[in-house]
Amino acid sequence: MANGGTDVKQGPKILLEKVPHLKSFLPDLRSYPNPLYQNSYFHPVPGFFVTDREAIAQNIVMDVDKPVDQNQRYFARAGPRERVFFEGEEVKVAIVTCGGLCPGMNTVIRELVNGLWYQYHVRDIRGIQAGYRGFFSSEHVPLTPKVVDHWHKQGGTRLGTSRGGFDLQKIVNAIQDRGYNIVFLIGGDGTLRGAVEIFNEINKRSLKVSIACIPKTVDNDVGIIDRSFGLQTAVEVAQEAISAAHVEAESTPNGVGLVKVMGRYAGHIAVNATLSSRDVDCCLIPEIKFFTQGQGGLFEFMEQRLMDNGHCVIVMAEGAGQDLLDENLKESTKDESGNVLLRDIGLWLSTEFKKWWKEKHPDKLFAVKYIDPTYMVRAVPSNATDTLYCTILAHSAIHGAMAGYTGFVAGPVNGNYCYIPLELVAVTKNPVDVNNPSWAWVRSVNNQPDFVPPGDDRHKAQEKAVQANLTH
Amino acid sequence: MANGGTDVKQGPKILLEKVPHLKSFLPDLRSYPNPLYQNSYFHPVPGFFVTDREAIAQNIVMDVDKPVDQNQRYFARAGPRERVFFEGEEVKVAIVTCGGLCPGMNTVIRELVNGLWYQYHVRDIRGIQAGYRGFFSSEHVPLTPKVVDHWHKQGGTRLGTSRGGFDLQKIVNAIQDRGYNIVFLIGGDGTLRGAVEIFNEINKRSLKVSIACIPKTVDNDVGIIDRSFGLQTAVEVAQEAISAAHVEAESTPNGVGLVKVMGRYAGHIAVNATLSSRDVDCCLIPEIKFFTQGQGGLFEFMEQRLMDNGHCVIVMAEGAGQDLLDENLKESTKDESGNVLLRDIGLWLSTEFKKWWKEKHPDKLFAVKYIDPTYMVRAVPSNATDTLYCTILAHSAIHGAMAGYTGFVAGPVNGNYCYIPLELVAVTKNPVDVNNPSWAWVRSVNNQPDFVPPGDDRHKAQEKAVQANLTH
Amino acid sequence: MANGGTDVKQGPKILLEKVPHLKSFLPDLRSYPNPLYQNSYFHPVPGFFVTDREAIAQNIVMDVDKPVDQNQRYFARAGPRERVFFEGEEVKVAIVTCGGLCPGMNTVIRELVNGLWYQYHVRDIRGIQAGYRGFFSSEHVPLTPKVVDHWHKQGGTRLGTSRGGFDLQKIVNAIQDRGYNIVFLIGGDGTLRGAVEIFNEINKRSLKVSIACIPKTVDNDVGIIDRSFGLQTAVEVAQEAISAAHVEAESTPNGVGLVKVMGRYAGHIAVNATLSSRDVDCCLIPEIKFFTQGQGGLFEFMEQRLMDNGHCVIVMAEGAGQDLLDENLKESTKDESGNVLLRDIGLWLSTEFKKWWKEKHPDKLFAVKYIDPTYMVRAVPSNATDTLYCTILAHSAIHGAMAGYTGFVAGPVNGNYCYIPLELVAVTKNPVDVNNPSWAWVRSVNNQPDFVPPGDDRHKAQEKAVQANLTH
Amino acid sequence: MANGGTDVKQGPKILLEKVPHLKSFLPDLRSYPNPLYQNSYFHPVPGFFVTDREAIAQNIVMDVDKPVDQNQRYFARAGPRERVFFEGEEVKVAIVTCGGLCPGMNTVIRELVNGLWYQYHVRDIRGIQAGYRGFFSSEHVPLTPKVVDHWHKQGGTRLGTSRGGFDLQKIVNAIQDRGYNIVFLIGGDGTLRGAVEIFNEINKRSLKVSIACIPKTVDNDVGIIDRSFGLQTAVEVAQEAISAAHVEAESTPNGVGLVKVMGRYAGHIAVNATLSSRDVDCCLIPEIKFFTQGQGGLFEFMEQRLMDNGHCVIVMAEGAGQDLLDENLKESTKDESGNVLLRDIGLWLSTEFKKWWKEKHPDKLFAVKYIDPTYMVRAVPSNATDTLYCTILAHSAIHGAMAGYTGFVAGPVNGNYCYIPLELVAVTKNPVDVNNPSWAWVRSVNNQPDFVPPGDDRHKAQEKAVQANLTH
Repeated sequence: MANGGTDVKQGPKILLEKVPHLKSFLPDLRSYPNPLYQNSYFHPVPGFFVTDREAIAQNIVMDVDKPVDQNQRYFARAGPRERVFFEGEEVKVAIVTCGGLCPGMNTVIRELVNGLWYQYHVRDIRGIQAGYRGFFSSEHVPLTPKVVDHWHKQGGTRLGTSRGGFDLQKIVNAIQDRGYNIVFLIGGDGTLRGAVEIFNEINKRSLKVSIACIPKTVDNDVGIIDRSFGLQTAVEVAQEAISAAHVEAESTPNGVGLVKVMGRYAGHIAVNATLSSRDVDCCLIPEIKFFTQGQGGLFEFMEQRLMDNGHCVIVMAEGAGQDLLDENLKESTKDESGNVLLRDIGLWLSTEFKKWWKEKHPDKLFAVKYIDPTYMVRAVPSNATDTLYCTILAHSAIHGAMAGYTGFVAGPVNGNYCYIPLELVAVTKNPVDVNNPSWAWVRSVNNQPDFVPPGDDRHKAQEKAVQANLTH
Repeated sequence: MANGGTDVKQGPKILLEKVPHLKSFLPDLRSYPNPLYQNSYFHPVPGFFVTDREAIAQNIVMDVDKPVDQNQRYFARAGPRERVFFEGEEVKVAIVTCGGLCPGMNTVIRELVNGLWYQYHVRDIRGIQAGYRGFFSSEHVPLTPKVVDHWHKQGGTRLGTSRGGFDLQKIVNAIQDRGYNIVFLIGGDGTLRGAVEIFNEINKRSLKVSIACIPKTVDNDVGIIDRSFGLQTAVEVAQEAISAAHVEAESTPNGVGLVKVMGRYAGHIAVNATLSSRDVDCCLIPEIKFFTQGQGGLFEFMEQRLMDNGHCVIVMAEGAGQDLLDENLKESTKDESGNVLLRDIGLWLSTEFKKWWKEKHPDKLFAVKYIDPTYMVRAVPSNATDTLYCTILAHSAIHGAMAGYTGFVAGPVNGNYCYIPLELVAVTKNPVDVNNPSWAWVRSVNNQPDFVPPGDDRHKAQEKAVQANLTH
Repeated sequence: MANGGTDVKQGPKILLEKVPHLKSFLPDLRSYPNPLYQNSYFHPVPGFFVTDREAIAQNIVMDVDKPVDQNQRYFARAGPRERVFFEGEEVKVAIVTCGGLCPGMNTVIRELVNGLWYQYHVRDIRGIQAGYRGFFSSEHVPLTPKVVDHWHKQGGTRLGTSRGGFDLQKIVNAIQDRGYNIVFLIGGDGTLRGAVEIFNEINKRSLKVSIACIPKTVDNDVGIIDRSFGLQTAVEVAQEAISAAHVEAESTPNGVGLVKVMGRYAGHIAVNATLSSRDVDCCLIPEIKFFTQGQGGLFEFMEQRLMDNGHCVIVMAEGAGQDLLDENLKESTKDESGNVLLRDIGLWLSTEFKKWWKEKHPDKLFAVKYIDPTYMVRAVPSNATDTLYCTILAHSAIHGAMAGYTGFVAGPVNGNYCYIPLELVAVTKNPVDVNNPSWAWVRSVNNQPDFVPPGDDRHKAQEKAVQANLTH
Repeated sequence: MANGGTDVKQGPKILLEKVPHLKSFLPDLRSYPNPLYQNSYFHPVPGFFVTDREAIAQNIVMDVDKPVDQNQRYFARAGPRERVFFEGEEVKVAIVTCGGLCPGMNTVIRELVNGLWYQYHVRDIRGIQAGYRGFFSSEHVPLTPKVVDHWHKQGGTRLGTSRGGFDLQKIVNAIQDRGYNIVFLIGGDGTLRGAVEIFNEINKRSLKVSIACIPKTVDNDVGIIDRSFGLQTAVEVAQEAISAAHVEAESTPNGVGLVKVMGRYAGHIAVNATLSSRDVDCCLIPEIKFFTQGQGGLFEFMEQRLMDNGHCVIVMAEGAGQDLLDENLKESTKDESGNVLLRDIGLWLSTEFKKWWKEKHPDKLFAVKYIDPTYMVRAVPSNATDTLYCTILAHSAIHGAMAGYTGFVAGPVNGNYCYIPLELVAVTKNPVDVNNPSWAWVRSVNNQPDFVPPGDDRHKAQEKAVQANLTH
């Protein structure tokens, strides 16, 4: 803290993750009272301004037989600070969105504009168009509360987005040449890794530019923060696909409904959508390998559910079972477009199950309906829960940037908004922790197989445990 | 813990809130291995079963300059236990819903039935109709997965509900006579206080009956837990009313939209709906007194917003401004029905503002549109977020009751599901903490007045702070 | 047609309603080929252009025992004409919206702009703000496809609206002074009567100005056309209120749900909403008198339904039962605000039924929930059906105005879009025809009382008919 | 009519399509007064009962220069008749649903049950499961108002459905053996053709069995009736996919959104969805051939829109462009699954356009997003408009069957519900009439190409017409 950042606090117990601060790089930086002090409508009561002493614990599940963890991680609490390091009139803001769509992007942009304008009297705010490349290849759009007024009711990003287009020197040149001093970056892990480079280059050039990031990943595959914005909305909209799959399955003898949701490396949407629907029989995610045929396999399980209930619904993350596709589709890789299509786990499962069923039950009616709602799920406006979340995210980021923090990510940890070092977030993955409650709930609530192959040691372990317990 | 309950753990640091356990009252109780051990589909991996040692911290915002709080409260983590105190075939379950409607009641009921049936092989589950009085005054309805299959898609409660009807002896007699040994109670603070009495009477009679509660209060006015189920859905649906108010206001010169939402003593829906909408100019809650006329008053603020933007939207909790109604409507209290109507803060504000405006701007067009969406907000099925929440709540409650806990509430604390002593929850209120972030966000995000009357000391305090800060 | 208008065609059988044409007033008017002839994308196939010979029959229900009606009314078919009476570059368009909100107003405005711009190359289009008074009291807003791009996704009217403000001379002066030659008026019966005056004054002044009207009345109380735009959307959204009332009623012993929908003089929304819901027990409309107490009265019917089903849902148009309120509330008219409130049929019925029930069943639980969703129903964007309808309405109006028609209304008759003389539409009411199928369906589908008081002749008539029929 | 059926009426002008009547086959059939005469709630006013003289005109667009068509087709008006040919207690009803899902199936079933039960006191109603084969291969499910109470809120069909399974003798045997005397068939053109066979076989056996049909085809490809139920709902839900495609396209440089909707031989959903969205640039249907490359082709048009607006949205019926796939995919037909996939016009267009663009604009960013919402569109409950429609359809069918009509279809013609001979409907297709208004509106509203190849005569015709018109 001595140098302006949130230094490592080595008091007896609390270890706070240091958030970089402009003063570390620009020691002579002036500070000013927060303009909210002079707000014409409300009076900052004691406690309104958040201090650098407030910290949020990361690990809050304790073992009562052990002493409280002395070395756990704490994060700086987000919120308005008493003193800021920019004056409203000097601030020049750039906002950019990168990567794929996610519900809430427009809400974040709109709130950045509104918060900067009304709380900090910033008047020069520009939108960078179509992602990183927009810094150097197209007009920067002036944004005002009037311009963004209805944006939060619209899906997608009004600024446009694209993948790639990252050219470090061109981007930092553009920032420097145009005089931006706060840059808000909204993007996924790729974007965040780019942001680290920008942050480092900015500091190398000793520019007074704060780099503030808001993680955007509908897959929820960015770590440390509780969840990424848009996830709840995506899960909500995915219910329409699951519900349709369920209706199709229920309306026909031995009906199977398959739904693929986003999630290349992390199955969060699939897990959440499954637990939010309660009409799903099995949820497949990249974190859990599965097999289709033989005892304990997916098809046997589906067959059982068809026998019990007459229908069966499977939800899968797009990244689930990619190892199976690799194994089974080697030859067909020669056919370019066919191959691409068949890497689709939903199409593959659909085809395979049909084959399996026809062989096993040649005379029994059945039907498989496969739904891929991907774009319909991610191109909607944020729902109420996510709009609130995006709003506070944006305002957190504003307060942090105005307070001189840089190279940070704004996001909630255990329900409290924090500032987290960008470098830390950029390298932290967020798979579904399959040894932990969220997946345990799916397994037990759904009563679904864990795809432990016959002969695996876990079967013996289970038997042993049962024996031990029975004699208890 | 030695005796089966979650005893006060006085290790060096962790103080766990004790959850009552049947063994405390019935020392010879037998336990059994959890039937999930022998689940045909999945193998409980290490960590699947939650132990009584796992505890969740209540206060996770720390001060880095102070040592870690040695005396803070911890709650027992919810989840399946290795050993249970009931065998599936012996269990006889009663489920009852009390009080007003709330999104998700049917989801909770359905999940209780499904979880008991499929995970613990319970086959005797009854629904008590129309609230507490249903224990002794009407048929108890047999519930099976088939019966409740589509219930989670429906609003309200298929079991019916009512207020009152609490007759302790008749209820406990019914429980005893019919041989129920697990009773799930879904209701608000009144219901929970009744549950405490039932719990005590059960213990007095030394019955092997577990009392498990799930707080239901769309107002979110039950304390300790993060939030009550249905809140997110209510906030989501309230957006339709706010959006309509906003459209009406925007479509007419000097248009004012007023929306009243639930919240007699706690303004959570209003606060959340405001932050989820971002088209609200001012949010009024019971926790903050306001005044209408004169400098710093509501009408002056509304006038300013009309001048700035041409329209203005106000969201109020039904309990907001009741002191103003008490003051201003004394005489009209004589007229019974009129009085009831006029205690409606929305109608009163609507009438008063019209008078005020006509006097001040006799020639200027204006329009006030008042919307009360109360029943439309609470009578819907749970949205995805709440369905997931209801699901895990119900399963948490099941695991707790099967593990022999009683007199407990299941609910999340800082995002982790816990078992909390019923007596504690029954006496804890949950107003919006107006000195804390959630309200600070409203104030600053909305830029709305805090209704500090002219002459109040807080004005001087602000001036002083500004001075101090300027000279910083 | 000789004189440019669609003259009375007295062929052997067909009588076409004459639509006024600019040529009648300005005999030397030049015509031009329709620019769609030279559309770069498509080729007008034979039949693409509609001729003045095409006519739509109004009465299509025939009596097979009678000869085809020789004197029935036919209307001119809407659609693009081969020749137009304006060149794109000369056209100056004004668009105005008047009266209360209705779903689809923005869609109509947007389509007028798009159609004029892309099909007829009109570049000077202005929006009049806040209704008729906007002609002379505020800026006229330039409209382009870019400006109106997202408007169809928004409820209300982006041009603003208001009631009143009609000043004939000022309006026509504004039209003349600013050189508008096509004026699109979107409004209800009051607006249409104003439009007749404007049309007459325009002709008196011999201006080349086409007056084209699109009826806007969410109550559907404008005659001749099949239905007004926004009705289907309103009925759709009203389902949410009815559904909530139904859930509330079902979830409580003897639960009654009351829903008030728009419809001061015509019960169309109530009728449609009732038939669209199928959870409604009784529908009350202004066109049918009813009484509450005694045999055959509403309360007895409700009591019966409560006894049969345990719950009961009533939908009423706001204009229903106003005679009852007149009778019963004379005294309370002295209290100004109370009175206004109590003219609300929903509040009155709610209060009266409670009294009646408490007297008759002092010991039986019951609950009445009253929902007034008015603004939530009318302030939404048009649904798909209405968007399509608004689109074709707007394009019909454009083609008509460009073809030189004036003083006309565009609207569908028996499913075919027509041009109807404005004067005819302005004086035609559209109550629910209670002797005809739409009401008969409600009566028989709902099995609801017709409120024929005891002693009324219709009872005897029924008996007689039954006797006659039995001996058949 | 003399013989009980609706005979050809050869009055001077009106030719009524004869609906078969049981009396034609069973001359001694007794009739009874309609039980609605003795309804306890309402009195059938004059006009309540529909007579066999009431007829609806099919062609209502007239040419004012020609005499009224003497030979046009009229259909018998649907509604309750004064006399019926069944007594409630003798009636035994079977209801069956066949073919693919369509919004509203459950609503129709529920209304059949309610109408039969409450209006005609029928108490023996059975649901046939899983389509035609259910007559002879599974339990017939007893249906009562209580059983079907919430069905109209659910998508799909609670009775189950399947394709095929038609075995005439087994079906008619089942009808005869079980004593059904009214059979309601809900299905598409295949089902209707089967119904004709059943109807003929029933008559051959001289059974007193009425065959009443309700056309179910989400594609709207059954002729004569105005539209099939579920269409409006499908169009409404398709908006979500189109809106997502539009958001995806707008949010990225040169973004293209493709949406495939149902419609193998008829493009009605595509046409309606296009006109309901207004964010669609081009609509492709089976009735209009198109080509992709070269002048006037689809890709050039898309390129133009991308240049003008930065994005482009295409909606296609699944049957559009199948000739192109036949031509281009001959070789790949060898690979079974790949081939099936590539017959998907959306995938093919998506792949082809990407190739074309990369070749033409190797350096320009672009993105193609393809959405296939098929099952999500058809597996939802009916919206308000369709629920009303399904309700009146079902009640029309009931009144017709009770009145002794058989071998008929119930459906609206020009907005009036009619009874139409089944044989007529079973053979009438309903393609989009591309020479008529509904398609003309798409063409002109959308300003989209008509894909007339270069050199086609229509180009010259257009030039000639322009010349002629210019010299006019």
